[in-house]
Amino acid sequence: MIRPRTLRVDYGKTANAVCVVGSALHLGLNRSAPPNSTFFSVKCTPNVQYSIVPPTQVTSHLSPIALDGKSVLLISMTSASQHENDSKLTVRYYGENQEVLSNAILHLTALEISLDVDADRDGVVEKDNPNKGSWKWGPNGHGAVLLVNCDSERRYAKQLDTEVDYISKLSDLRDMSEMVLRTRGPAKLPHGYKLTMHISQGDAESVRVYTPRSQSIGSILSGVSGGFTRVLSSQVLSGQVPYLGGVAETNFYVEGLRFPDKDFDGLITINLSLLEPICKGLPETPIFTDSVVFRVAPWIMTPNTLRPVEVFVCSTSDNYGFLKGMKSLVARSGYKLNICHEYMNRGDRWMQDELEFGYIEAPHHRFPVVLDSPRDGKLLDFPYNELLGPDFGYVTRVALRKDVSSLDSFGNLEVSPPVTVNGKEYPLGRIIIGVAFPTTTNGRNMTKVVQDFLWAQKVQQPIALFSDWLVVGHVDEFMTFVPAPDRKGFRLLLASPDAGYKLFRGLQKSGHGQAKLFEGMYVRPFLQFPPPSMCKPIHLLKGRSDQEQITVDEILEDEAFQAENNYVQSCIDWNRDVLKRELGLEDGDIIDLPILFKLHEDVDQEFRAVAFYPDMVNMIVLGQSLGIPKPFGPKVNGHCALEAEMCSLMEGLGLTCTFIDDFASYHRLLGEVHCGSNVRREGFDFKWWDLDL
Amino acid sequence: MIRPRTLRVDYGKTANAVCVVGSALHLGLNRSAPPNSTFFSVKCTPNVQYSIVPPTQVTSHLSPIALDGKSVLLISMTSASQHENDSKLTVRYYGENQEVLSNAILHLTALEISLDVDADRDGVVEKDNPNKGSWKWGPNGHGAVLLVNCDSERRYAKQLDTEVDYISKLSDLRDMSEMVLRTRGPAKLPHGYKLTMHISQGDAESVRVYTPRSQSIGSILSGVSGGFTRVLSSQVLSGQVPYLGGVAETNFYVEGLRFPDKDFDGLITINLSLLEPICKGLPETPIFTDSVVFRVAPWIMTPNTLRPVEVFVCSTSDNYGFLKGMKSLVARSGYKLNICHEYMNRGDRWMQDELEFGYIEAPHHRFPVVLDSPRDGKLLDFPYNELLGPDFGYVTRVALRKDVSSLDSFGNLEVSPPVTVNGKEYPLGRIIIGVAFPTTTNGRNMTKVVQDFLWAQKVQQPIALFSDWLVVGHVDEFMTFVPAPDRKGFRLLLASPDAGYKLFRGLQKSGHGQAKLFEGMYVRPFLQFPPPSMCKPIHLLKGRSDQEQITVDEILEDEAFQAENNYVQSCIDWNRDVLKRELGLEDGDIIDLPILFKLHEDVDQEFRAVAFYPDMVNMIVLGQSLGIPKPFGPKVNGHCALEAEMCSLMEGLGLTCTFIDDFASYHRLLGEVHCGSNVRREGFDFKWWDLDL
Repeated sequence: MIRPRTLRVDYGKTANAVCVVGSALHLGLNRSAPPNSTFFSVKCTPNVQYSIVPPTQVTSHLSPIALDGKSVLLISMTSASQHENDSKLTVRYYGENQEVLSNAILHLTALEISLDVDADRDGVVEKDNPNKGSWKWGPNGHGAVLLVNCDSERRYAKQLDTEVDYISKLSDLRDMSEMVLRTRGPAKLPHGYKLTMHISQGDAESVRVYTPRSQSIGSILSGVSGGFTRVLSSQVLSGQVPYLGGVAETNFYVEGLRFPDKDFDGLITINLSLLEPICKGLPETPIFTDSVVFRVAPWIMTPNTLRPVEVFVCSTSDNYGFLKGMKSLVARSGYKLNICHEYMNRGDRWMQDELEFGYIEAPHHRFPVVLDSPRDGKLLDFPYNELLGPDFGYVTRVALRKDVSSLDSFGNLEVSPPVTVNGKEYPLGRIIIGVAFPTTTNGRNMTKVVQDFLWAQKVQQPIALFSDWLVVGHVDEFMTFVPAPDRKGFRLLLASPDAGYKLFRGLQKSGHGQAKLFEGMYVRPFLQFPPPSMCKPIHLLKGRSDQEQITVDEILEDEAFQAENNYVQSCIDWNRDVLKRELGLEDGDIIDLPILFKLHEDVDQEFRAVAFYPDMVNMIVLGQSLGIPKPFGPKVNGHCALEAEMCSLMEGLGLTCTFIDDFASYHRLLGEVHCGSNVRREGFDFKWWDLDL
Repeated sequence: MIRPRTLRVDYGKTANAVCVVGSALHLGLNRSAPPNSTFFSVKCTPNVQYSIVPPTQVTSHLSPIALDGKSVLLISMTSASQHENDSKLTVRYYGENQEVLSNAILHLTALEISLDVDADRDGVVEKDNPNKGSWKWGPNGHGAVLLVNCDSERRYAKQLDTEVDYISKLSDLRDMSEMVLRTRGPAKLPHGYKLTMHISQGDAESVRVYTPRSQSIGSILSGVSGGFTRVLSSQVLSGQVPYLGGVAETNFYVEGLRFPDKDFDGLITINLSLLEPICKGLPETPIFTDSVVFRVAPWIMTPNTLRPVEVFVCSTSDNYGFLKGMKSLVARSGYKLNICHEYMNRGDRWMQDELEFGYIEAPHHRFPVVLDSPRDGKLLDFPYNELLGPDFGYVTRVALRKDVSSLDSFGNLEVSPPVTVNGKEYPLGRIIIGVAFPTTTNGRNMTKVVQDFLWAQKVQQPIALFSDWLVVGHVDEFMTFVPAPDRKGFRLLLASPDAGYKLFRGLQKSGHGQAKLFEGMYVRPFLQFPPPSMCKPIHLLKGRSDQEQITVDEILEDEAFQAENNYVQSCIDWNRDVLKRELGLEDGDIIDLPILFKLHEDVDQEFRAVAFYPDMVNMIVLGQSLGIPKPFGPKVNGHCALEAEMCSLMEGLGLTCTFIDDFASYHRLLGEVHCGSNVRREGFDFKWWDLDL
């Protein structure tokens, strides 16, 4: 009995009205009464129910009841009419002496109308879910889900499906959410009545609605194409839909066009109204509106602990050895390797930085979606040209060239495994990005459009770390996550100069002070990025350029180098404190890896850090297999002490370490294995809509 | 003991650290231990507190305790230091046989730092409110309030204070919120440490922070002007602030620059960080951050039930009679009348339409703010030129000319008195605007920028009515609110053709069918808007043009006119249903006023309605006095039957009716008393931050 609708009936006249089952009509008795009315009585056919407000003491309404100035009839109907005007209600008015003055007669037609969606999120469009008009997060929540149709049904001459305003292939329907209009009533609507579907101006840029053409709807709608008709779009906010008569269902397909963002909370309302005619030339009045709410599915990232599906890596003119190592690792791990060849990468080897893999999910469908970085190196066409396709989506955010920095590469965009922080659960983990200290006035940051996008997805609430202390400035230069059989199911690995110094001091103590780093390595001259003139060490260790062989003793006696590493450790410690707090970690959840850094003066004439030897934390994680940059550390009994330490730290977690030589082709260009690779992973078993937000 | 900070201490060395009282330092014992350490002991000065994690069984920490690989010291300080490094903590490490291996020594300096605001909203900046870093609505809520400094301290050559990035007058400080930095510690910070205040890029466009120059802060800050220094602004996101030594307070003044809007939720965070130096050329590390949150006060409208302060009306070449009536009404009611003269209004008499009065409020200050409509008729300069001034604010929203329609006039923007709807309280009422039916494809609407602004204020959640059925399209053409001594404290008055027909039928029955409307009235030709060619009646009553004299009988026998009024009634009924639902009203809260409408064909060739005789609902409400358009209805015994009915309906509420002749100068131009006037009212006693949102 929600939203009673005011109805006008005049004495001495017969009025017709349509009543939607579940709604009520409000008839002011005084309004329709002839002058001098003192009593009234009410009579109706069985399908009609009514109550008198305020209630009367009288049990039968067939004999005269005293007319109160405020008396109102609330009228409702219990089931749909078979024929127009098949139900009746009569109010009879009487004078002071109970003489009949006049009748007000109402002919009623009842309709059942329900716009239906999968509000209980089980993949099936149920009938008239009472919660279909709102969204609630959580396992006891409700509200339908919409996917951004960001894949491309076509493999050739492709376009994002969101940019195509018709349905070119039936397979495209799988990317949309079903919506059903269920009606029950007479064969036709009373003359002049209409059903119309409508959305607000604000929602119109985020959604389109289609319906199959076969339902003989075509002629009253525009935008017909193939077997489907476009009912609503950014240009058409309101469109008539057919009333089929009897017991009928009309299917609609709802297509999401935009991801949640700073200016879009992701919620969309679609309304269906029954319009009552007034007279020619006047707009019809909406007398009943049913509404459904969709939430656009967020873009979700996949942490290292999820199962890999595909590994991506670039082939360049100079990375044969690296590629061989990667091929072997991926083959042994049993995953698919996808090589991006030179004609496509044009020498840009930083597969991690140009894109981030994620996915979107609705109860009826899930597919991967690549987020294309505004970095736009020479790999810029790869995500769109090579990845976008049927059931492989694409999304990007465009920034002005001047607003894009190295921090916009997606080595600076990671995600934690699921965590619980002070009782608050993050079953999809938390996104991690690197920025400048908020206290600095001239730091580099991830560009605002990308940050806004990430925050707006909501389901993996981001954490901002401080990464601007690094020349390249990516969080993957000092941290990663690996799976673990115990504790929280993972460990956070952090680069640690302290751990490095401790290891080197131990070597010195045990008589290996003369062991050399970079021993026996063939080092080719600096390749391309960064040109030595644009980024150089602020001091030379023992007067040598970086990567020349150097002994453990020499490293330990250089106090300036120790001071630089103390600084780096303080930067990492700052991030360690943030990560412990924001991910709810204890020290036992963190493993410090022995890695030293060196400060360089970069193009901004700021002092920033790069890894001194290959940065082992910058690894690829493939299930229990780790592909780790080969560190070329000091050898003890013919074995690299850094590799040995790494293996010993990972062994207890059941992880196997494979060291891959990336020195010449990646490390010297200020990246490592992780920077040069990317992994598409399976999604979470956990459904994002079950989050309690 | 929130957010422990990781600290590095090496064995055999003395480290210095600054600890902010209330925070904790986290010292990994294993990290600072010399090789082969098996035991440790801890000693400290009285001001230092520590705990060992995981806890040991040992009660005294002065004798050797077994060193666990994971042992951590959590260190805190109980009060501020008098001198730098006046507190100490020593960790002594022992070998297997409890022989001393080495000491790690920590020299500590404790500081008390608190950035304070009026988080408990009592007008006083309390010390270190535990809730200062967040906002919570409601009487048990917390969070400081910021005003948009949208008035102008200068009366001449004026500018909005938000557009002036310095403090020109001391009185301007009243429009800002006070913020205090309270510190306690040694006379100076340890060498290289700094305090810095900082905001995010996103908040920077919404806020400025000033501090008095006398606090010897000038030299380290830019933007000095007058006695005040600008610390933060849209250009300066981070600025150093002085540490004064000992027990000290530094005052800051925070200025709001933007009202909440679609892209701004109104919340602003200001941070204060203590920075630790690393070495020259490297950015300092923030080791402690205190944050405060402000919410920008929303713009609040004032319903008819609030006490009037000032009445505004235009003087034009042709409205002498009307003006005389208004002067007399306002004088009798005891309020101030403010006449906008012709040099300013340039013939634009629609004082209601160009602006809406409201106010903003913080615990320490409140002032009126005019919202200037994008309508921009010839009155467009009035709000800025005549109203803006000291403690009289101004805000507007700019729209493209093509997006502005008649529905953007603020006769189409009203606010209800306080209501409770299904248990939900709206103690500041609800904003009411008129739009097109959502189901129509080509209706007129209030422009999006204004709607977004109104919705973003949040505290008077808007209701959208259907007003596009009227030629002018304003909600004040069919509804208003008047105070009442009973029920909800007010009545909703609605124009009602049904009530009109009922009254006229009654007159006919009682033998007054020959009484004439518009009798004895001198009607001058149509004046200016709308030119008759652009908006004409769709049929002529008895072949006569509107406003020619016509009898009650003639009105009642015109069936086309009755059909038009039935349509109008159905439009008003639709709004009545919405208002009942959204304001929680019953029929007893609503009074129907006898008003007939006539359909015209307007410039869009659509049929829309205008009032047939002066539209009595379009009144001015001044306390218990109503200024009502004189309807020129049929006379019974020399008295206008419409006036008599109106008086009888209002009498019971203790309201007095004054009928003002607005026929020639307003009604014929499609407006009435309300359209031609405006009232500035006192604000609510209720504080908006006490809302439970």
